[in-house]
Parts: sequence; structure tokens; C-alpha cells
Amino acid sequence: MNIDMIRAADARIAVVVRRTPLLNSPFLDEIAGRRVWIKPECLQHTGSFKFRGGYSAVSALDQDTRAPGVIAFSSGNHAQGVALAAKMHGVPAVIVMPSDAPKLKIDNTRALGAEVVTYHRATEDRDKIGAQLAAERGLTLIKPYDEPEVIAGQGTTGLEIAEQAKAHGITQADVIVCCGGGGLTSGIALALEADAPGLRVRPAEPEGFDDVARSLASGQIEHNAHQTGSICDAIVTPQPGDITFPILKRLAGPGFVVSDGEALQAMALAFQRLKLVAEPGGAVALAAALFRKDEIEGDDVIAIISGGNVDAEMFRRALEGI
Amino acid sequence: MNIDMIRAADARIAVVVRRTPLLNSPFLDEIAGRRVWIKPECLQHTGSFKFRGGYSAVSALDQDTRAPGVIAFSSGNHAQGVALAAKMHGVPAVIVMPSDAPKLKIDNTRALGAEVVTYHRATEDRDKIGAQLAAERGLTLIKPYDEPEVIAGQGTTGLEIAEQAKAHGITQADVIVCCGGGGLTSGIALALEADAPGLRVRPAEPEGFDDVARSLASGQIEHNAHQTGSICDAIVTPQPGDITFPILKRLAGPGFVVSDGEALQAMALAFQRLKLVAEPGGAVALAAALFRKDEIEGDDVIAIISGGNVDAEMFRRALEGI
Repeated sequence: MNIDMIRAADARIAVVVRRTPLLNSPFLDEIAGRRVWIKPECLQHTGSFKFRGGYSAVSALDQDTRAPGVIAFSSGNHAQGVALAAKMHGVPAVIVMPSDAPKLKIDNTRALGAEVVTYHRATEDRDKIGAQLAAERGLTLIKPYDEPEVIAGQGTTGLEIAEQAKAHGITQADVIVCCGGGGLTSGIALALEADAPGLRVRPAEPEGFDDVARSLASGQIEHNAHQTGSICDAIVTPQPGDITFPILKRLAGPGFVVSDGEALQAMALAFQRLKLVAEPGGAVALAAALFRKDEIEGDDVIAIISGGNVDAEMFRRALEGI
Repeated sequence: MNIDMIRAADARIAVVVRRTPLLNSPFLDEIAGRRVWIKPECLQHTGSFKFRGGYSAVSALDQDTRAPGVIAFSSGNHAQGVALAAKMHGVPAVIVMPSDAPKLKIDNTRALGAEVVTYHRATEDRDKIGAQLAAERGLTLIKPYDEPEVIAGQGTTGLEIAEQAKAHGITQADVIVCCGGGGLTSGIALALEADAPGLRVRPAEPEGFDDVARSLASGQIEHNAHQTGSICDAIVTPQPGDITFPILKRLAGPGFVVSDGEALQAMALAFQRLKLVAEPGGAVALAAALFRKDEIEGDDVIAIISGGNVDAEMFRRALEGI
């Protein structure tokens, strides 16, 4: 896993990926006590950065491997990213989801052309179902983060940040990234190491699901006690990845931990000041940039909004705060 | 008023204006029955396209004229656009607003560095107050739409659309624009005439406030019976402008008229499918693109989301539909 893979991914995905802008607002600067720059990956195809990794991985397969199709386990943003990437390549996608996944997510994934296979969480073994389908049909598994070509795709976000920061004269800053398994965070870390060494990645996670922050602190992979119970579901994973963690350990600064309430407040501010729709898990980096001013140094901070796939009910809840 | 003024404005504002992307969603294409492209000016500085015109007008003043400052009458998007433009030029801005304007709008305009002067709608003459202030302090009035340098600034949106449409291979399409006094619509019309003659501007307005659509139909300036009573307040004006209407008469296709309910539905779809916050008046063009399929021809349609300055209560109302 290295910068050359990210540059190669960038060359493959540049024609289809959206180059998201770098936004700011004087009102957010005021709250944060410094200039806050926002990279809105909620504006990416399928509403999250996951499309970058999905397209990178599918496009990296040789034609014979790709033709039978791909398979992914996800009820969320990775599902939609892989589904659209497969559709754009004209190959089948099978997405394995728990049968209790929200109907909207199942419908959206189907509408993007994927076949959705559901399983019962309590009684069925997801991995067994996936392995059987993959073997029968010759499908290639696209893992959500611990997969080099996925990390390379997410890392293209970092190439863009490096370029955009330079254009704004930003040479020193923390780049705060909403962090689940660490695919986006580690990809950006490698890109910045190469193209903007004055910028440093720092992960942001929800309270109670801060495996990456604790792993960075202890120097070894730590686990979360639970895997449910956060409104920031998009970035809840059991532990940092085997490929992503060594990269983070080498390059990332200390992690941030934010509460659900702070994530909701950041969503409300993104609505009010940036005209952007962020999902709770996609807003934790902005929350850290705004509400952890004493843990940040320097005149500038950059925060990723990693996704915007939130239902109306949760969004209304965020708006109650303003 | 001509294309050279738009190109000159573009050269002046390029360093500060946000070049907004051209977005799309397969889900919106499905509803519209054709490809729908969205130009999200809600992502512009101050949350609307008005910043383009404000900055263009302030930057066009010679230094001696500019130094004492500028004045504008507006309780909405034009106020914020002019305020930020003046701030960026380091000159004072005085914004004259009715005393019953929403506190948030007054606060936002002040936070952008402007001096807000309020007047009582019932008992005071806005124009007299403005003229007196302008004379006393040597302020230059920046009109919201019937002002060539403002139209030129708004027209830069059209230069971007021409370029972006070309990049997507779109050579024939209607470009639907949320239309109040016609500054944005006529500026885009001139830009497209020069740079993308296969693209045709068409205004979109709220029901009951369709002065431009009726003026285009009759060939002469028609008035609105009322000036309040629409949730699309940002684009309610008494009549098309004296400078804007001749341009629209020459270049625009028939206008669209959408209901408040359709504008709210378009806001909900922008939330769900684009992760964008649109205000009601900023969503009428998207509503027309989605819900007037029989009035549109061709495989592609382009719609501007002109602004996103909506309060949480109205946005929650839009989300009730999904």
C-alpha cells in the first residue's frame, strides 16, 4: 500500500469521480477560533466517499476477473458505492445485507442496479452466504476498508486536499477525518505524506466507538466493546484494519472523540452555514474541528464531511438544535 | 449589457467566487424522465448566487467611488452578497432592511460586517432613507438586478454552465433558472448565447408571482398582483427589470410556474438525492425540471438551485413529504 497506488487509482477514477470543493464559512471560523475548511464528500456520487474506493477496486480488476461481477457486505454507504461502480463497469453487483436493514437502503442499492441478498442476523452466517455466492458465480469480494485498491481510491480525496490546500496557501494544518475502519483516513494520510507533508491526518470517532483513537494511544489494535448504539452507524466498526492501522500509527496525530449531540450540532451548522446535508457519522470530523479547539493548533483546520445519507427523521432531530 | 461585461466580471471575480459543480443523480433522472443536471449556487459564498453580482458590482467601482462604501436595500440574499463583497474589498456596506425582517437575517448581515439600518414599512420611506444615507456618506447604491454589473456577475454562472455542459457532452438543453427580477436569468442567457448557443434559458417562478412568464407570453412587462404570500420570498419581485426583460424577451423560452408544494418537494429531493439544502425560491427550477416533463424537450435539462438560505422550520416542513 503506497502513494503510487493512490496515483494510479486517481488516474482510473478521475473521469467519473466528483472533485469535491473545499468550502468555508466565516460563521464556522468564528466558532472554531480559526479558519475551518470543509471537504464535502457528501456531494460525491452515492452521497459518500465510498464511491471512490468502490470504483477504484472494481476498475483495478482485470477484465476476466471483473466480468462475472463483484460482491460486498454492507447495508450502508459501501453498498451504494460498489453498486454504482459495478453498474458503471457494466458488471453485476451482489450486496449482502441483514434482512432488518432499512428498506430505503435496500431500495436505493437495488435502484443502483445491484442484486440485494438478505440474511437473518440471528440465524444465518453472512460470510458463509457470501462465500457460497462468490464461489458459485465467480464474484470478487470488495472489502469496505482493509483492501489496498479501496484505500487507494479513498486516498484520492487526499490528493485533492493537498492541491486545494496549496491553492489556499495552507501549508500547516490538521486534516480531521471521520474514521471507521480507517480506509479513508489512511488513504488520505498517505496522499498528504507525499503531496502536503505539512498537513497531518487525525481521526474523529463517536463516543464509545473510539477504537482508532485508543489504538493510536496504546500503539496496538484495540477493539470496541459494542458495535451498535451510536447514531453514527456509518463509521462504527469493530477495530482498525490490519492494513490501515500500521499506516495510521505511522502518520496520524491523536484521535478526537465526539458525542452524538456534538455530531448533531455539527449537522445543524453544516445545514445553516454550508447548505450541506451531513449524516451523523459524516459530521464527527466537523464537530471535532468546531468543538475541540483546545486540542488543535494552528490557524487552519480541514475537516471531511464523509457522507450525507441520513433519513429525514434524524435530520429533523439535528435541526431541533437551531 | 453584453457578453464582454460578463467576461470582464468573470476575470474580476474568478479569484474569490466558488466555481460550483454540476451535479446529477440517477434517482432524479428517473423522476424527470431525462438527465437532470443541477448547478448548486446554494454552495456559493453567502449561500446564494447573489454574491457573484455583489462582488462584480463592488469590484467594478473605481477606487475613489468605492472607498466611502456601498448601500443596498434587501432583507435577503442580496444583502448578504453585497455585505461580503464590501467586506472583501475593505469598504463599508450599509444595508437597509425593514424592521420586521427576521432577526437571523439581520444578524447574519451584521456578522458579515455590514451596518444594518432598519425602517418601519408602514411609516417610513425606504428610498428616502437610502438616498439620504447615500448622499451624506457618499455611498454607491447596488441594485439587486436592474444593474449591468450585477447582471454581469450573475452571468458568470452561465459561463460555467456552458463549460460544464460541454464537458458532459450536452449540446442541446433547456437551462431552468429561478427567476425574480431576472438578473440571474438574463445574465445566464447572454452567457449561453455566446458560449453554448444550443442551450436555452427558461425562467421558473412560484404560482401567483409569475410576472416574468406572463411578460414573456404577452411580450411586454407584466406585474404581480401581490408582493407577499409565497414561501418563495427570495424570488418575489413586482415585475421584470427594465434592463433584464428585453434580454429575456430576446433569448428566453417559455416560463415555468410551480406551486409551493412542488417547491417543497424539490427541496426534499435535493436533500435526499443531492445532499443539498435549497430554499423554497431556490428550488423552483428543480421543481420545474422534475415535475414539468411534458413542457420540456430533449434528453437533458439543467436546473439552477439559486440559494439555500432557509430556516430550520421551513426545511422541516419540506422534509415532512418524505
